[in-house]
Amino acid sequence: MEIRSKIWLEVDGEPVFGSGRRSLFKGIVKYGSINKAAKKTNISYRKALSYIQTMEQRLGTKLIERRAGGIHGGGAKLTNEAKEFLKKYEKLENGINEILDKKFLKVFGNKKR
Amino acid sequence: MEIRSKIWLEVDGEPVFGSGRRSLFKGIVKYGSINKAAKKTNISYRKALSYIQTMEQRLGTKLIERRAGGIHGGGAKLTNEAKEFLKKYEKLENGINEILDKKFLKVFGNKKR
Repeated sequence: MEIRSKIWLEVDGEPVFGSGRRSLFKGIVKYGSINKAAKKTNISYRKALSYIQTMEQRLGTKLIERRAGGIHGGGAKLTNEAKEFLKKYEKLENGINEILDKKFLKVFGNKKR
Repeated sequence: MEIRSKIWLEVDGEPVFGSGRRSLFKGIVKYGSINKAAKKTNISYRKALSYIQTMEQRLGTKLIERRAGGIHGGGAKLTNEAKEFLKKYEKLENGINEILDKKFLKVFGNKKR
């Protein structure tokens, strides 16, 4: 038996960041494209834009910069604020599983089931 | 901004216990009835029986004892194993929120958003 967990962040009771947006943000860093990042996150482009928009509204900060078409095609990148936010979120996630595993072992012991 | 979390337990990648079953178990303790406990958990009686059955299979332990109708009506109660399990689960949950809040504050500081 093992412990599983899911964490996310909320502002005024509304979700602002979790595994979906983390995956989207990391995709934008990797591909420089909201469209490709959305595909990798298994959400639609429309959903990705809505994720970004509501998050920017709730945090009151610009998070994604989009460039229009041009000769090399359009693209998107994280603002410094978004990079900082992603870094903090990953730091937050980091270690949480370890903490929970420890807590689980302490209470349930190391029984297989 | 605040951190939110959800925890649950799995055996071989399959869920065996979480907030739904915790609510169901506590309802059975309180009402002595799977039917009433299911209503309070907002699940059907059929779903409650399925929850109990799969959990008993996955843990290999009898968890709920049911008594047939009779003059005072039927009823259900937790076996000692189920009581012990519930106690451990609540102990596990207890303190996890506090740990996560601390970790959140450490990473994100005490900024309102």
